[in-house]
Amino acid sequence: MRSRPNPAPATSSAQSDVSLPLRGGVDVPGDLESAASAAQAPAPYATAVLEQLCSVCDEHELGALSSRPEGLALLVGTDLLAVQEALMGPVGSHGLVKGSAEHLVRLGGKRLRPLCVALAARVGEPCDDHVRDLGVAVELVHSATLLHDDVVDLGDARRGAPAARLVYGNAASIFAGDLLLIEAIRRVVSTELPNLLPSMLDSIDEMIGAESLQLACRDLVVVDLATYEAVVVGKTGALFGWALHAGGRAGGCSPEVCAALELFGRELGYTFQLVDDLLDLCGDSEHMGKCLFTDLREGKATYPLILAMARDPELRPRVEAMFSAAADVEADASEMASIVAAIAATGALDETRAVAAQRSEAAVAALAGVPEGPARSGLAGLCELLLRRIR
Amino acid sequence: MRSRPNPAPATSSAQSDVSLPLRGGVDVPGDLESAASAAQAPAPYATAVLEQLCSVCDEHELGALSSRPEGLALLVGTDLLAVQEALMGPVGSHGLVKGSAEHLVRLGGKRLRPLCVALAARVGEPCDDHVRDLGVAVELVHSATLLHDDVVDLGDARRGAPAARLVYGNAASIFAGDLLLIEAIRRVVSTELPNLLPSMLDSIDEMIGAESLQLACRDLVVVDLATYEAVVVGKTGALFGWALHAGGRAGGCSPEVCAALELFGRELGYTFQLVDDLLDLCGDSEHMGKCLFTDLREGKATYPLILAMARDPELRPRVEAMFSAAADVEADASEMASIVAAIAATGALDETRAVAAQRSEAAVAALAGVPEGPARSGLAGLCELLLRRIR
Repeated sequence: MRSRPNPAPATSSAQSDVSLPLRGGVDVPGDLESAASAAQAPAPYATAVLEQLCSVCDEHELGALSSRPEGLALLVGTDLLAVQEALMGPVGSHGLVKGSAEHLVRLGGKRLRPLCVALAARVGEPCDDHVRDLGVAVELVHSATLLHDDVVDLGDARRGAPAARLVYGNAASIFAGDLLLIEAIRRVVSTELPNLLPSMLDSIDEMIGAESLQLACRDLVVVDLATYEAVVVGKTGALFGWALHAGGRAGGCSPEVCAALELFGRELGYTFQLVDDLLDLCGDSEHMGKCLFTDLREGKATYPLILAMARDPELRPRVEAMFSAAADVEADASEMASIVAAIAATGALDETRAVAAQRSEAAVAALAGVPEGPARSGLAGLCELLLRRIR
Repeated sequence: MRSRPNPAPATSSAQSDVSLPLRGGVDVPGDLESAASAAQAPAPYATAVLEQLCSVCDEHELGALSSRPEGLALLVGTDLLAVQEALMGPVGSHGLVKGSAEHLVRLGGKRLRPLCVALAARVGEPCDDHVRDLGVAVELVHSATLLHDDVVDLGDARRGAPAARLVYGNAASIFAGDLLLIEAIRRVVSTELPNLLPSMLDSIDEMIGAESLQLACRDLVVVDLATYEAVVVGKTGALFGWALHAGGRAGGCSPEVCAALELFGRELGYTFQLVDDLLDLCGDSEHMGKCLFTDLREGKATYPLILAMARDPELRPRVEAMFSAAADVEADASEMASIVAAIAATGALDETRAVAAQRSEAAVAALAGVPEGPARSGLAGLCELLLRRIR
């Protein structure tokens, strides 16, 4: 990705649905893309989430954005376009590994982390190139972990398409993850922002620690909530936290503001994961880009599952039996639906929603340490948008 | 590895034989360890190669070292001890992944790359900490690639012990490789030597490119010598080259000297790989720390195999049959010995030895651009030592 003489056009037929599956009847207006085009036409998938975000901000009359939802598109639309263009460029130059890396990165996804970088950066007054490079870096780190995760979990689908490991093989995915990590580091180095790289390395370290903890708990249905929290904080919270911190640094924000942004990011990440847990059980697979019950199938402890098993003693043996069963998919589907019903009956889904809402409130509370303005409102709106997925 | 309040003692019962399997009757003196102890007792495995190196330098009356083989121990013995101590410290803090990473790193190995860093650094006048940190960094990158390689190749043995992936699982090895990479980068950053990290990232990029090329040629017996060379240059030459370059940078050498050192390193790496190819076919498995015929079993194209198949048309179908056969290990062993005999009959082993000698000469020729002195003599001796393994 170092040289991009001819960046690929920012369109892709392989693109999956990257909008967030919303509940509760939010109408996502279609006219924001034209508003955004005033700010140099972000690519469709870069604006999909942005459009929803503008709508949520509008509806909630969030700060300075209330009367002009297109303000957000003007604020970060160009940033997201620049990130997207960079991500659509070539990754490495190496056959299978290049193919594997580009397969995942170009499929799109919601680009939530670059959006976080851009919003945090626009709290201050950033250099555009830094916003782009840090947005690309955080998305590449995220993509690297997805590639390695899918190899570890034998995941078959990702972003509504076959996982890279199915197309290019596990080996190529391992090296592709390495490649993306190297490129991410290169991008951070290129900003020359002091001490930013060490903070990213610490975040990656934290992510690996969480992966290790999760590995140790694999197929153990006896994970407690404290372990669950440690895994989520490391796997999801750390990188969201770094995205916000890095954005703040790019914007020239004070250490105090950067710390508040990072805290917001960590709570946002936790909220995001709780919502993901719920969507695995009761989401819409068409909009998720991956199969339902993936976590359940993989024996991954999720918040609602842990809660429900603590409440319903009959649930644990059923879940354990499912984990240990051979892959009789037909039988599984019916049993899994029945397990989901049993989980719901314990009230675990409602409680998970409540905890997600609390975490989201904690995130918004952290924004008290961030200067008011459209960027801060956008961050609050993003939190609301993520939560909206399960309402 | 960031905090080492109680570095583990620099001994290990799990240590494999890390000396180089020599041919041609070099007597390795046992008295060098006492000489080295004057320079603060390097750990046994740190000195194993150093002792052999001193012996070779002595025998060949290489420059300033000719009359005092202990000079080399005094020159880099303390550096190697510091690297070894750092490598024996904890890696990360994370259960399975920590276990997997430490398993490999603590098994030892020859530590050739840190030796290269130290010798190159002592061409100039380095800061001791930089020599240690860069020596650790290059060994960690090397270890990271071994961890990922063993997962990709399903390798069972490494450094005379079960591969980390067998002990801790493939998943832990993938994340352990990531962890070592992050720690390596941290070490390079800590030196604050300008533009050194980008050069390391470029080397890793080159290694990944070579891995990708090798993947594409997996189980293809039709690899030509040009492809082979590209793989070896990337997989082995790039990191040896960087080790020498980084050492030169630590020593404050001029760009010209650093470039000469890097060229030496690349040729040394090529020599090393050719010798490894030969040892896979006709080495001593007890001293190799891994099984013979590993490359052959894995369908990896090696220099002598490519040469021999071009010369003996009957060899290719036999090799292809072996690659495609199920793992009937008993039958394989006898057929493989017969294949090795057929390879030898084509003269491919002798020619590979000759090419290794040429590469070694090219390495020594590159040293013309490096100031004379004991460090340069040590580098020349190292080249001789690596070649000696197949004489």
